[in-house]
Amino acid sequence: MSIKLRNRSKRLCLYRTNYEVEYVTQKERVAIIGAGPSGMAQLRAFESAARAGADVPDIVCFEKQADWGGQWNFTWRTGLDEFGEPVHSSMYRNLWSNGPKEALEFADYSFDEHFGKPISSYPPRAVLWDYIAGRLEKSNVRDQIRFQTVVRWVDFDADRQIFTLTSEHLPTGESTTEEFDRVIVASGHFSFPHMPTFAGIETFPGYITHAHDFRGAESFDGKNVLVIGASYSAEDIGSQAYKMGAASVTASFRSQPMGYEWPEGIEERPVVERFDGSIAHFADGSSQHVDAVIMCTGYLHKYPFLPDDLALASPNNVYPDGLYRGIVWHQNPRLMYLGAQDQWFTFNMFDVQAWFARDLILGRIELPSEVDRDASIETWRNEFEKISTVTEEIRFQAEYIRDLLNATDYPHFDIDRVVEIFLAWKNDKKNDIMGYRDRVYQSVMTGTIAVVHHTPWIDELDDSLERYLNEDAEAGASNDDEEPSSDVKELVGA
Amino acid sequence: MSIKLRNRSKRLCLYRTNYEVEYVTQKERVAIIGAGPSGMAQLRAFESAARAGADVPDIVCFEKQADWGGQWNFTWRTGLDEFGEPVHSSMYRNLWSNGPKEALEFADYSFDEHFGKPISSYPPRAVLWDYIAGRLEKSNVRDQIRFQTVVRWVDFDADRQIFTLTSEHLPTGESTTEEFDRVIVASGHFSFPHMPTFAGIETFPGYITHAHDFRGAESFDGKNVLVIGASYSAEDIGSQAYKMGAASVTASFRSQPMGYEWPEGIEERPVVERFDGSIAHFADGSSQHVDAVIMCTGYLHKYPFLPDDLALASPNNVYPDGLYRGIVWHQNPRLMYLGAQDQWFTFNMFDVQAWFARDLILGRIELPSEVDRDASIETWRNEFEKISTVTEEIRFQAEYIRDLLNATDYPHFDIDRVVEIFLAWKNDKKNDIMGYRDRVYQSVMTGTIAVVHHTPWIDELDDSLERYLNEDAEAGASNDDEEPSSDVKELVGA
Repeated sequence: MSIKLRNRSKRLCLYRTNYEVEYVTQKERVAIIGAGPSGMAQLRAFESAARAGADVPDIVCFEKQADWGGQWNFTWRTGLDEFGEPVHSSMYRNLWSNGPKEALEFADYSFDEHFGKPISSYPPRAVLWDYIAGRLEKSNVRDQIRFQTVVRWVDFDADRQIFTLTSEHLPTGESTTEEFDRVIVASGHFSFPHMPTFAGIETFPGYITHAHDFRGAESFDGKNVLVIGASYSAEDIGSQAYKMGAASVTASFRSQPMGYEWPEGIEERPVVERFDGSIAHFADGSSQHVDAVIMCTGYLHKYPFLPDDLALASPNNVYPDGLYRGIVWHQNPRLMYLGAQDQWFTFNMFDVQAWFARDLILGRIELPSEVDRDASIETWRNEFEKISTVTEEIRFQAEYIRDLLNATDYPHFDIDRVVEIFLAWKNDKKNDIMGYRDRVYQSVMTGTIAVVHHTPWIDELDDSLERYLNEDAEAGASNDDEEPSSDVKELVGA
Repeated sequence: MSIKLRNRSKRLCLYRTNYEVEYVTQKERVAIIGAGPSGMAQLRAFESAARAGADVPDIVCFEKQADWGGQWNFTWRTGLDEFGEPVHSSMYRNLWSNGPKEALEFADYSFDEHFGKPISSYPPRAVLWDYIAGRLEKSNVRDQIRFQTVVRWVDFDADRQIFTLTSEHLPTGESTTEEFDRVIVASGHFSFPHMPTFAGIETFPGYITHAHDFRGAESFDGKNVLVIGASYSAEDIGSQAYKMGAASVTASFRSQPMGYEWPEGIEERPVVERFDGSIAHFADGSSQHVDAVIMCTGYLHKYPFLPDDLALASPNNVYPDGLYRGIVWHQNPRLMYLGAQDQWFTFNMFDVQAWFARDLILGRIELPSEVDRDASIETWRNEFEKISTVTEEIRFQAEYIRDLLNATDYPHFDIDRVVEIFLAWKNDKKNDIMGYRDRVYQSVMTGTIAVVHHTPWIDELDDSLERYLNEDAEAGASNDDEEPSSDVKELVGA
């Protein structure tokens, strides 16, 4: 044996003849990795074109979980799943949307169409899962998904311009290697926890987890809880711990506090410098006995099935470098990413991305030259670099979506109104961090004004779909008045 | 695009010329996957041969962690590590060996040689890690290990009889693809938890983990703990919870209870039928309020880097099917597994396996024909099927080791004496499940009689190497007498 390869080498792969090779189709073959909101949007995009008579490629969607929904497919499991695969979902039992549903509504499938009646603006997890699944249930796209099938490795043959994708069906362990003309990565980037270390943490005697593996705060009743971080997970899990009766919630920030007007029992402190047994010592010299530590310290872009020349490596931001139109892998435009951005817009952004990706594949949109793609990336990256406020970031993402929307036949919607909803939401949170989820907004898609939920968030302990949809539930605000209050009118711009 | 492959096809791979190909050596190249006790044994085996003048292959050992030691390389992390990879170690902070060290001692590197004095028979984790690392520290085998490098995918080219192995250096994300003549899988099979589900577990409000992710019982002080399982993890973690002050420990068995004379505060009950909130309901109709659930439900054989035709799939037993001499993959003898058996013997079994694998590669041992290999497997499997008691299983593994030992130059040792130690150990546990770790044994390798540790296990709360080696530590049994007590003499057969 004599060869040592200095680098990952490109391979010319000839398939041998002692395996059956079936000439099935002359169509392009497209692999979609992941059947979460992004992958489901891609399936919807192709299905929508097919319904309108287009000739669409053969599609195979690989989904590690047993059902679709990605993050929204809750599991009680943490760490590794029943097959030893990393658990995908980072959601917890009692999670409610932390942004108004009017900011994420599909333009081609409204909440009204799905639920048949107005609902509140901040539905629990199970309600949103029901909504995103509902859009696809009337089609046969589920047949295109291989559930419980994990993608193990993807190789690209530059000469033949073909991907070789190896997957494993988890219940049987069967490996399958197939060729695809295109690969669309829709596996998300909020599943692999970024978990920093702290002096003394190896002997901290209490409960330590990452937001990714946090499943509920019921056991924090009477406990002193430390959330490390100052972004959405810290805000939300800290609030959940408070709601569930934590004796104290301390949120520790590295650079800036969240700065909300927290109720008594929640406070913010600077970064943890060390743990000494169960005592957390903070940078301001203060200390606190802590029973549980939840690291709300973000997530990693991680694509263990891709070689380094295909894998996006980026901090979590609204314009990761190397993606033309935020979608097309600059080094190899046969590879695309959906939802790789940090997200203000979510479901509807995935939709416009999926429609754009579809139209590139169908040849409805022409792929520019590499030089022009690089120029486009540079232009957007320059704008991205100028962002200095949250409002600017939201407006940046709105412009990004508008640009894609104008290129496809995805139903147009009033992006500026969605921006206004985001700004009002920020304001609601500033005014009442424990009460903002009780506010209501007007749909940009249908004009429907959300109803005030039967029970305020702080009092609701049953987050199920059944409870949520039960109009006869006790307590809470009246549902009688279909008109928004004057207060609501102001919020929705009515 | 037109090709659909019915199955994972074998590929003929030609390396293209636009990448530098360096003709480094005419030697065989051997990949070892994992630098835990088994991988370290393989490195030692080759190093030992090289020291004696043999011409050994080029070796690359791939280790996911930043240091060697495998399971024994403790981390406070659970679930996924700092790079989003599954955490390897299943050990907890306060773990002590649950078998006497005299049953696992290396024949070529004694505890006496490492520590320079007699130590007790049940050292804590850190002490055993120090021992296994110490054997290699005097050589340069560490240079053969690529730390923080995970193997992503291994392919075999049957025409060229060559493996193509792709790895990723985790800190940089760099992918490397290389060719090897042999692959030795030493990645262990106690890292991927087998995690069953139970009715109602998705709304159990307390702490749920698997033994794999259990890191310490300090926070169980005053709590009601449920361990699910009836094997070593359940026994050990249940005992640890008791030691750390749990209000109650309930161990739930599926088929047979462990049956020890548990102290008050530990009890065994049949299988959990369901959870109702924090109440566990057992098959005997009883119920128990539970604060924490530890699933001691075993581990999966999992090799996510291998296609199905190379991956061992087996229950955890002492003779997995498909391995000639428990080592050589029957379908492809260029692939070998170390430590794939369930284990009574551990470190010294890995050694004899590694010596055997080495001698096959060096041509010192001739590989029988496929027919003869299959016959050997069948013979051993027939013996394996006859096992009906624990004692028979220990003796079976002893015979397995004897067979390998006779084929190599690994230093001979008295395997029957080790069997006697195992049987005495089983008896010690039966007599005093909370005190068996205070017993001492005589080394089969050196004749040295272990010393009684300065502090009984039940009272020792500092499990560090420093504390362990500190002869002046307060409390506990006297260390003065180098002779074993009469009781000890009986145990060691003196």
